[in-house]
Amino acid sequence: MRLARLFPVLDWGRQYNRDTFTSDLIAAVIVTIMLIPQSLAYALLAGLPAEVGIYASIAPIILYAIFGTSRALAVGPVAVVSLMTAAAVGEIAGQGTADYLTAALTLAFMSGAFLVLLGIFRLGFLANFLSHPVIAGFITASGVIIATSQLKHILGIPAEGHNLWELVASLVAHLGQVNWTTVAIGAPAIAFLFWVRKGMKKALTRLGIKPRLADILTKAGPVLAVAVTTLVTWALSLTDKGVSVVGEVPQGLPPLTTPSWNPALWQELLVPAILISIIGFVESISVAQTLAAKKRQRITPDQELIGLGAANIGAAFTGGYPVTGGFARSVVNFDAGAETPAAGAFTAIGLLLASLLLTPLIFFLPKATLAATIIVAVLSLVDFSILKKTWEYSRADFIAVLATILVTLGFGVELGVTSGVALSILIHLYKTSRPHMAIVGQVPDTHHYRNVLRHDVITYKSILTLRVDESLYFANARFLEDKLQAEVAANPDIRHVILMCPAINEIDMSALESLEAINEHLRDMDVTLNLSEVKGPVMDRLKRSHFLDELTGRVFLHQHNAVQELLKPPQTMPTYDI
Amino acid sequence: MRLARLFPVLDWGRQYNRDTFTSDLIAAVIVTIMLIPQSLAYALLAGLPAEVGIYASIAPIILYAIFGTSRALAVGPVAVVSLMTAAAVGEIAGQGTADYLTAALTLAFMSGAFLVLLGIFRLGFLANFLSHPVIAGFITASGVIIATSQLKHILGIPAEGHNLWELVASLVAHLGQVNWTTVAIGAPAIAFLFWVRKGMKKALTRLGIKPRLADILTKAGPVLAVAVTTLVTWALSLTDKGVSVVGEVPQGLPPLTTPSWNPALWQELLVPAILISIIGFVESISVAQTLAAKKRQRITPDQELIGLGAANIGAAFTGGYPVTGGFARSVVNFDAGAETPAAGAFTAIGLLLASLLLTPLIFFLPKATLAATIIVAVLSLVDFSILKKTWEYSRADFIAVLATILVTLGFGVELGVTSGVALSILIHLYKTSRPHMAIVGQVPDTHHYRNVLRHDVITYKSILTLRVDESLYFANARFLEDKLQAEVAANPDIRHVILMCPAINEIDMSALESLEAINEHLRDMDVTLNLSEVKGPVMDRLKRSHFLDELTGRVFLHQHNAVQELLKPPQTMPTYDI
Repeated sequence: MRLARLFPVLDWGRQYNRDTFTSDLIAAVIVTIMLIPQSLAYALLAGLPAEVGIYASIAPIILYAIFGTSRALAVGPVAVVSLMTAAAVGEIAGQGTADYLTAALTLAFMSGAFLVLLGIFRLGFLANFLSHPVIAGFITASGVIIATSQLKHILGIPAEGHNLWELVASLVAHLGQVNWTTVAIGAPAIAFLFWVRKGMKKALTRLGIKPRLADILTKAGPVLAVAVTTLVTWALSLTDKGVSVVGEVPQGLPPLTTPSWNPALWQELLVPAILISIIGFVESISVAQTLAAKKRQRITPDQELIGLGAANIGAAFTGGYPVTGGFARSVVNFDAGAETPAAGAFTAIGLLLASLLLTPLIFFLPKATLAATIIVAVLSLVDFSILKKTWEYSRADFIAVLATILVTLGFGVELGVTSGVALSILIHLYKTSRPHMAIVGQVPDTHHYRNVLRHDVITYKSILTLRVDESLYFANARFLEDKLQAEVAANPDIRHVILMCPAINEIDMSALESLEAINEHLRDMDVTLNLSEVKGPVMDRLKRSHFLDELTGRVFLHQHNAVQELLKPPQTMPTYDI
Repeated sequence: MRLARLFPVLDWGRQYNRDTFTSDLIAAVIVTIMLIPQSLAYALLAGLPAEVGIYASIAPIILYAIFGTSRALAVGPVAVVSLMTAAAVGEIAGQGTADYLTAALTLAFMSGAFLVLLGIFRLGFLANFLSHPVIAGFITASGVIIATSQLKHILGIPAEGHNLWELVASLVAHLGQVNWTTVAIGAPAIAFLFWVRKGMKKALTRLGIKPRLADILTKAGPVLAVAVTTLVTWALSLTDKGVSVVGEVPQGLPPLTTPSWNPALWQELLVPAILISIIGFVESISVAQTLAAKKRQRITPDQELIGLGAANIGAAFTGGYPVTGGFARSVVNFDAGAETPAAGAFTAIGLLLASLLLTPLIFFLPKATLAATIIVAVLSLVDFSILKKTWEYSRADFIAVLATILVTLGFGVELGVTSGVALSILIHLYKTSRPHMAIVGQVPDTHHYRNVLRHDVITYKSILTLRVDESLYFANARFLEDKLQAEVAANPDIRHVILMCPAINEIDMSALESLEAINEHLRDMDVTLNLSEVKGPVMDRLKRSHFLDELTGRVFLHQHNAVQELLKPPQTMPTYDI
């Protein structure tokens, strides 16, 4: 049973039969066709040789099939992680050098190891730090940067930059050198791929082709673009006219590689590795959850961390780079009917064959075609509507999104995502640092106590009752201190303070010490501190401290009871004098 | 009115009279006597010339008197901030150089400017990030480091180190060079000062001296130690025997200085400046609040930021270094009867006179005596009982304290406090990321719904009701998704899910998108999502989104109502088919 949890393959593997095999095989063929151009393109985006994209899709898929819990997730290179890899590794080595390759492998290994650690220690909750709006903003901004960065391949000019402005400036500076032959390939490729996405399926069905076949043909659209532009480039010898092509791609199995163990390199890659892991995980788990729901299946987040981690470690030892569960490929896999992770394994075999047999054919594949594939893919990720949505729904979230987008565009991906995370935590702590509190009074003829600002209630000059509608912890403990001190200093008639606690689920050590300070301050002002309607678990914990011994007032089960007791003339109250 | 808020002096200044003047003057004399050795000592701890400690106590006190809201707070150099200054500035320049001095001034300016900005933008809540246990652990660990660092002055040997182990190793390495003449001064000084603290007052009253006078004499104890050891050193020419003395101290007013505007220096000092500001502010405001409570006075945290900020900016322009409201001096000031901040101004005049007239007298003051002053002062801050307290009360807080202490001792003050803050935020987010949720059912013969695990309640196979006892936000939104998906995947009979929301005070954008995802996932599983008992403000906000339009189920005012409606046979429910 426990082994089955670590190796979900033992679970679905037992029920594997001919039907599922057929479904999986068909899905694998479709996904393989789709993955070939995409993998080459994303490797290029990451600044790596094209074949690295294929390598990064083989071992990781198999490892995920063994350790992952999603039945349909397809793991491999994706756009945003490729961009982040380029940003991180580009800081360390020049593109095309052996160091660049090693750094990418190391990044994959570190990111894999980090994910596995998170999984083992059940720290998947860390991914929650990335709020949805921050992710949406980050992905949109990354999409803009990626699309812009690929324009150089379409225009056939060099352009470099770590952020949008640098990229645009660099593109503009080189505008005079545009290679129009390259544009003549890239621009139609973009147009065609957009049509593939938006209109091809409809057009094919209108021509009488069956929907299922039309679907498969549509998915093969990018392969068609690759084939046609490669052929044209070869036939017309366009390389002589300055069209960049993929060139020599080694034919063979993925190489066995090892990451670097150099501590200095590890230190430099630490932050990017963490960010890539978390962003990859968040993207992957959202996809996995969406697909699992469609079949009432369950995925286990902590096991997903181990699955993704294993995939990345696998990438590190087989010439790949950081990978994650991609949205597009997973949906295709699911729609194509994949029933089990075996579909992934078959895809891996397909890609293995491709890397063994097909690589000579892509010598003349223009980089412009790959860039077109990327541009069309990422523009579907760009969605500024999150700004409008958050503006309408919650200003706090709007600020976090806006900051994420602007910082990502202006200062790059790493700073963008960290500032988004930091800002949303800050905003959250700010909001909970001022919890809702109400001064309450008795609703006439009842035992209910309600907010004095909203209801006509009975209050007494000598008693102040404050209801706190949030757990007390370090971020809001001082606020309660300030609030009480201000109220009591302003109303010299107050003799008793009652804290009404039905909504307090927790009191941490800071809040306990604040309560002790409040108790002491109130004692100095000759005011007693009382509690009412304290929840059981909170009371249990308070009993473990000295607070209740030092409390100047009492703890009441019911608010009404508290008021009645405290209203009695002082001589009937037990005092130290008696 | 608004001017009076910015300048609290306008408030208390109007009611100033002869009585308050007398009280303030007496308090000022006592505090001045106490401050002279303390200021010299802390400057030494910060690695600065002794007179800088006096300078740092003059302008800051006056500026705080104008801008601060506490009546009794005494601002000046304190131990922990001095240590932090030494740690930050020591990274940049060697002790005794002009650069070191400039860096200290710049640190004071940056820290002052940061505090003023926090005050203007009302960001004082940021100080809440420092939980009480983290501060307690940090101050204890700092106390240990400070006391250890001063041992070199007592032993008359050189010793350096950024953390406890380095310091101890360095001390041990130089043990052979101990200067026994220095020890002969330092050791009795420590013993005497401890006695001053613990037994002197009692001894004096036993001798028939009136308590009030005994009190004043006790406070003058350190001055006595200074005077005696200085005289002995001078009389016996102990400097020839290797006793280090304070030496030449410039006689005169505090110099006018300017901080550096070098951006590189600012960048290096940014993090230390922020940490010093926040730690100083937290220490200061706790003291201010405690003293204000004793007289039913009120302090305004945001105005306190401005007061402390002004004090630090003042220090930067008058040859000082970062200051804050000190615990010991403020309590002495309060106990001595200070009524208004004018007492602080008089103290400043006292110190001004001291720096004009007394500096030649301290040429032969042994550094060992100052070190003894520091050791005795900081050992009162060392209190490991916080470990026991938190261990008993809350393991989460215990982990944060332990980490703060260990990291501060092992890696220095800056890393110590940042890791404490980071860890407590992490732990908090972890705790709220798994909010309390209960599956509930109907208590028989009532309309109440309670936890199925705690009560004998009626449930239905087709309905799952989940009550969430926390606001929904980015850190816990995914947990709800996981939980619901697991429940529904495990129970194929479920047709309706009801989220019972009476305890949900907020739903942020991430949680909204999670609810949308849940709604969609449940729809894919043929299950409706319903809400019950949604609070008014939360409902208002949901109406601003599209969520309610897409909701597969309905929103019910009461849980019981929801169950009754959903139990009705499906044909009577409105569906899309009708």
